[in-house]
Amino acid sequence: MIIKEGERIDELQRNGYRIIQKTNGFCFGMDAVLLSGFASVKPGEKALDLGTGTGIIPILLEAKTEGSHFTGLEIQAEMAEMASRSVALNRLEEKVSIVQGDIKEVPTLFEKASFDVVTTNPPYMNDSHGLKNPDLPKAIARHEVLCNLEDVVRAAASALRPGGRLYMVHRPRRLIEILMAMKSQKLEPKRMKFVHPFADKEANMVLIEAVRGGGALMTVEKPIIVYKEPGVYTDEIYDIYGY
Amino acid sequence: MIIKEGERIDELQRNGYRIIQKTNGFCFGMDAVLLSGFASVKPGEKALDLGTGTGIIPILLEAKTEGSHFTGLEIQAEMAEMASRSVALNRLEEKVSIVQGDIKEVPTLFEKASFDVVTTNPPYMNDSHGLKNPDLPKAIARHEVLCNLEDVVRAAASALRPGGRLYMVHRPRRLIEILMAMKSQKLEPKRMKFVHPFADKEANMVLIEAVRGGGALMTVEKPIIVYKEPGVYTDEIYDIYGY
Repeated sequence: MIIKEGERIDELQRNGYRIIQKTNGFCFGMDAVLLSGFASVKPGEKALDLGTGTGIIPILLEAKTEGSHFTGLEIQAEMAEMASRSVALNRLEEKVSIVQGDIKEVPTLFEKASFDVVTTNPPYMNDSHGLKNPDLPKAIARHEVLCNLEDVVRAAASALRPGGRLYMVHRPRRLIEILMAMKSQKLEPKRMKFVHPFADKEANMVLIEAVRGGGALMTVEKPIIVYKEPGVYTDEIYDIYGY
Repeated sequence: MIIKEGERIDELQRNGYRIIQKTNGFCFGMDAVLLSGFASVKPGEKALDLGTGTGIIPILLEAKTEGSHFTGLEIQAEMAEMASRSVALNRLEEKVSIVQGDIKEVPTLFEKASFDVVTTNPPYMNDSHGLKNPDLPKAIARHEVLCNLEDVVRAAASALRPGGRLYMVHRPRRLIEILMAMKSQKLEPKRMKFVHPFADKEANMVLIEAVRGGGALMTVEKPIIVYKEPGVYTDEIYDIYGY
């Protein structure tokens, strides 16, 4: 049996791929799907996902791009084991590897400058902000319990080759801190896309591309609007989800 | 005669106000109008506009807000003199002052921390970028000939009281440089609004609010879309222009 008690299998609407998630645990969100649409992995490139959770991002990027190899790093042993079973479920063992380990150990886990692309959907909340989820695995996914923004950016800077690209999804409220952290690691923010739940609401997600050692000019792309009316996605969201 | 040869008078669609512009010189653009809509000047507050040109921003803010006094600083003597005539044309001498002087001299021109609000629509182009306009007054308005981004931000930090707000309009391509310059002067970027010419195009303007000595959380407001179809403004633009 590929699934255990308390788990379920969800369809990904891409290449017939499926993913194992916990019935009552942290499930991937729209953030991960939008990040996989925003990230560009060129033919033959190698990508690393920091804090991969269910493995959703490497699996979606394998489906959407012609990258040669995708690695997902996950600190929680139980999540990493479940993500590995999702890789097996889709018979992607040759293209996708799940590594169990700590983002802070990236410089020793992986050869420096050995990836073309790094993706990350890190915990959004400062450890001091918001109520911690009493379920520890969920808290680790949402709060900076085991790593903070700087750890993630430093890991990306170590893993990326010069000219390599970091793709991050995060909350706009922390934008300045994010941009400063990237700059301090010589990852130059180059492209942003804001996600607004409705056309007349403030942004609740930001997608950022930064280039290791890049120049200083920024492009702010057309925004993504999620809903055209309550409960009804815009066509763009259906496109990104692959319906 | 309030106007000179080579000048014209334009209607501002606000309080019956009018403005004098050069027929063949630098005329105010949508940037200034959007900035005057984005900036908040509360009842009784004092505002300073850095690089005021025709005086458009102090005149519009006097019309749109209940601020107690508005100062426009302009380095070019001929522009400053023309802006003063626009102030007189609207009989605003008691509420709006035009000062001829250099942004780099703000710490000596004005008492430190004496303004609640600073606005600026500075030259967008690095001196090294783009062809310089052979007309020097236009070049000074568009290129960083006489002052650069850092000079403008430093002047704002000097003029603003603690908790005072800077409102800037600029190009998104220079966003990272702008945000870094603000942070380095302890002006904390707090609110941004991107302006897209069409809903499906990248942003070509950004409006930024920064607070002197503020906290670190950012809000990215709903974007402004300028045209709903080629040549037809969206309702929001008509509202901001006061039609």
